[in-house]
Amino acid sequence: MSHKPITTVGIAAKPQPSGALPALKELVHWLGNRGVPFVLDPDAARLADTSGPVAERDELPEKTDLIVVLGGDGTLLSIARSLYRREVPILGVNLGSLGFLTEISTEEMIPALEACLNGKADVQRRMALQCTLVRGEEAIATFHCLNDVVINKGALARMFEIRIEVGGLWLTNMRSDGLIVATATGSTAYNLSAGGPIVVPGLDGFILTPLCPHTLTMRPLIVGAQTPVHIEVVRESGQVYLTADGQTGHPMHAGDHVRITRSSHSVLLVVSQSRNYFALLREKLGWGSGHP
Amino acid sequence: MSHKPITTVGIAAKPQPSGALPALKELVHWLGNRGVPFVLDPDAARLADTSGPVAERDELPEKTDLIVVLGGDGTLLSIARSLYRREVPILGVNLGSLGFLTEISTEEMIPALEACLNGKADVQRRMALQCTLVRGEEAIATFHCLNDVVINKGALARMFEIRIEVGGLWLTNMRSDGLIVATATGSTAYNLSAGGPIVVPGLDGFILTPLCPHTLTMRPLIVGAQTPVHIEVVRESGQVYLTADGQTGHPMHAGDHVRITRSSHSVLLVVSQSRNYFALLREKLGWGSGHP
Amino acid sequence: MSHKPITTVGIAAKPQPSGALPALKELVHWLGNRGVPFVLDPDAARLADTSGPVAERDELPEKTDLIVVLGGDGTLLSIARSLYRREVPILGVNLGSLGFLTEISTEEMIPALEACLNGKADVQRRMALQCTLVRGEEAIATFHCLNDVVINKGALARMFEIRIEVGGLWLTNMRSDGLIVATATGSTAYNLSAGGPIVVPGLDGFILTPLCPHTLTMRPLIVGAQTPVHIEVVRESGQVYLTADGQTGHPMHAGDHVRITRSSHSVLLVVSQSRNYFALLREKLGWGSGHP
Amino acid sequence: MSHKPITTVGIAAKPQPSGALPALKELVHWLGNRGVPFVLDPDAARLADTSGPVAERDELPEKTDLIVVLGGDGTLLSIARSLYRREVPILGVNLGSLGFLTEISTEEMIPALEACLNGKADVQRRMALQCTLVRGEEAIATFHCLNDVVINKGALARMFEIRIEVGGLWLTNMRSDGLIVATATGSTAYNLSAGGPIVVPGLDGFILTPLCPHTLTMRPLIVGAQTPVHIEVVRESGQVYLTADGQTGHPMHAGDHVRITRSSHSVLLVVSQSRNYFALLREKLGWGSGHP
Repeated sequence: MSHKPITTVGIAAKPQPSGALPALKELVHWLGNRGVPFVLDPDAARLADTSGPVAERDELPEKTDLIVVLGGDGTLLSIARSLYRREVPILGVNLGSLGFLTEISTEEMIPALEACLNGKADVQRRMALQCTLVRGEEAIATFHCLNDVVINKGALARMFEIRIEVGGLWLTNMRSDGLIVATATGSTAYNLSAGGPIVVPGLDGFILTPLCPHTLTMRPLIVGAQTPVHIEVVRESGQVYLTADGQTGHPMHAGDHVRITRSSHSVLLVVSQSRNYFALLREKLGWGSGHP
Repeated sequence: MSHKPITTVGIAAKPQPSGALPALKELVHWLGNRGVPFVLDPDAARLADTSGPVAERDELPEKTDLIVVLGGDGTLLSIARSLYRREVPILGVNLGSLGFLTEISTEEMIPALEACLNGKADVQRRMALQCTLVRGEEAIATFHCLNDVVINKGALARMFEIRIEVGGLWLTNMRSDGLIVATATGSTAYNLSAGGPIVVPGLDGFILTPLCPHTLTMRPLIVGAQTPVHIEVVRESGQVYLTADGQTGHPMHAGDHVRITRSSHSVLLVVSQSRNYFALLREKLGWGSGHP
Repeated sequence: MSHKPITTVGIAAKPQPSGALPALKELVHWLGNRGVPFVLDPDAARLADTSGPVAERDELPEKTDLIVVLGGDGTLLSIARSLYRREVPILGVNLGSLGFLTEISTEEMIPALEACLNGKADVQRRMALQCTLVRGEEAIATFHCLNDVVINKGALARMFEIRIEVGGLWLTNMRSDGLIVATATGSTAYNLSAGGPIVVPGLDGFILTPLCPHTLTMRPLIVGAQTPVHIEVVRESGQVYLTADGQTGHPMHAGDHVRITRSSHSVLLVVSQSRNYFALLREKLGWGSGHP
Repeated sequence: MSHKPITTVGIAAKPQPSGALPALKELVHWLGNRGVPFVLDPDAARLADTSGPVAERDELPEKTDLIVVLGGDGTLLSIARSLYRREVPILGVNLGSLGFLTEISTEEMIPALEACLNGKADVQRRMALQCTLVRGEEAIATFHCLNDVVINKGALARMFEIRIEVGGLWLTNMRSDGLIVATATGSTAYNLSAGGPIVVPGLDGFILTPLCPHTLTMRPLIVGAQTPVHIEVVRESGQVYLTADGQTGHPMHAGDHVRITRSSHSVLLVVSQSRNYFALLREKLGWGSGHP
């Protein structure tokens, strides 16, 4: 996939002590040698202890043409949420533990970066969700997210019922612990723990996976991404939350609505040239070892 | 099953407007005619608007020899939790919607009561759980419950890990949304929504059913009731709760322990003489209709 | 959806004594009054006991412009398999028991037929599978089917391993009882019993659902319909079968291959104007009763 | 657990080329040095190429006091089925791939054998099933098995319905691909692939796990081992089989009955002194690695 030429590289690092330092040093050194300007997010700047330009994490998309993420899937998701401002590719580097999103190893980092600069990288366009929380007539929050939106009740809440519409048609009312609405990319995240299916990225749809539904015949349901999903909290007894990518949450109350559509902005993901999506599944899920 | 003669009958009713009034009137009238003394819980007293003796719900076991519950499974569970004080049988009457615990219909109520007074009722002894929450060295709370104990994280908490021991042996550490520890009686409650198996009452064991475990090979596990289950919260990022029978909750923190054993007190449940446990399963779960 | 004008109507009926006679009589009488020529399949002809034109069931698509199916989903599937010869719409009438495919009731039959003749019916284009069984270099059988293709082992076979490729890439090798490859339309058939997800018709993909896989992390997987699915029997100990729509079977042996692609022919399904797909799900699966 | 003194040791080996030879040689040499008489099954005799006493595999229980099995769980199951003749302990040795039943490694083999001879081994008593197939009034076959009994339909059969009774009470009629009735020991075998729960050995019950049931609210059900399970084939369209421990099969027809009870004979399993049951689960299922 061709994309815009890369003038400046953004660098984000996992905040906690994460073993990112060696990779960060290598990256900064290599970019310096190549004369490629770079901008660090505050966590990376703190870790690198250098005097280069720094920008807030959510400003990186506007100030750079490629963002290298050093750390886990969580760090990459936090970057992806601000990509609606400007579509720049993300190169996710894992620090030892292979992630579904950070699939580039530290050994592959420099070659992958080289490929990006030469316009030869494998960049996948991943669909993102746009989710708007509406209270009364007012849109009180809007998220863009790559993996999933979750509406669920707290541990102590006893009553929770939602009404689900798909494409303007009533699907059902449901009592449960909650509902995941995931993208294909998010199908291997929380959705998988909740019993949902794996959907190959590129198949643009919404995966609706119930959490502990009272009605035992409820099943994960997959609908096309062109049909908006609309969820209303019908009844609750406190502690209902809307969560995007498992990271940011908003309390919800009876009568609140959520409207989920395909985001007009995609996430551009630099993927490994040596490991395709199925190899990633096999390795992460322990499939078919020894059967080539 | 023979049990002690019934001198006084306790009556508890579902608090909310619940349609309990006709059954309550019939019950009070019938007991009056028979000259059987009765004690009402505050909700029943408020509903009946009579001037008879009243006792707090959790005192009914000490003041009566049989407790009639008018309402749903939830009301019955709240009574069952105080039965450790004295084992008296419970007769659960549903008000239209068949329950796994309140399986007696209003039509069957008086005949079932008659059978109880004559010592001819079918009374099942159901195992209960005893659960103690320990912080540091101190036992800070103890519950008796009939259905289940749940340890789970709140909607916004991102990190939650528990360590599970069974019979003093390490079973596993688990990252998940939580864990249900259910009795056979509780196997058809929350456990069923979470994908756990049905266990026939009388098979005394603990059913350990994980909620959205990260490790996909985790499965519901059933152990004998003679082996205590011990659960420690190893890591959390806020909002962890211990809940008994879906009703009472306690916050938990990293380092807190829960010890679950078989309660030395059972719950004596008056069951229908016209519908056995399998008929209850078929009716509640919509099985095998039309295949006698 | 507009389609070709209807000159002749085909009629197929469920073979066994099925209660189809009243609907068949009504249908034949109505078509006679309207002066619309019709052709019966042998089962319908036997049942109707009339002297009209008769054609083999798989010849109906070439001789008629609309096929009315009186009976269950199975009868409709058997018609759908011959539609690759010519795309004519099918109107599925259920005889009392609502089907996912035969969703028109006998009461709705004549109005739906009227709508078809007037070009005002709701006709959905459903994706079909094409499946070719290859032994050595030779294609020994080709099926077109609407619901699913299943490769599974017999009850006594102990060893069964397949190799799965998607879009030319190795997905995994799998030991199991078998594999379902279903369309969205077939997602509510065998796939649902096997634990697969529901996929809304219109989302064109293949649902790969394993039957009792040895590896517990295997999950239903959904891939786009543009990527062919290729399955090879790697090891078997007898009794392996390829089945199309649960109806026609072919034995398979180690080394045999199956290639599954999107059929170039669709199935045109006349759907109810009073009950959308979600209403069908709610009714068939017992969802959300009483929660409008 | 104390048991009878061991005078003679039986040795059974996996038939196929299985890498059993080094362990077999070591075993025979060690027994020779210790002056302990031993009897080989035909497979072991062929492999060892020695001139010692040989007995059919199913005669080993009557001729020896301990049976060492060199090979996988399948070989051990085939021995276990003849133990109803005489209860002798089995020591299962795996040849590289840890089994749920053959949990002793070749390194542990001699110390475990030594412990057996000294009466110091850990021997677990495992419940076995007795299963009788009845046609008309006649019992036409009886099996004893350690893991499970399966009744299922062949790949091409379209109609299959069974009637299930537990303890003389009708449970349900079920249309499905089949039913597994497993012991706790068998819960980690086929039952696990079919979505059933894990049951700790020692909890004596029958686990009834349906295979692809038509009714989606069917769930694995666990009943006590004191209640016989009775299964009748109500309807079939050919190819129904009863299989014991995945190894021996009998065709069944509509009207045939199966009666499953607790066997009066147990299987005595020599278990590892260094790895308890939970450690075995963790290792086989890949749980909780790195979380002591």
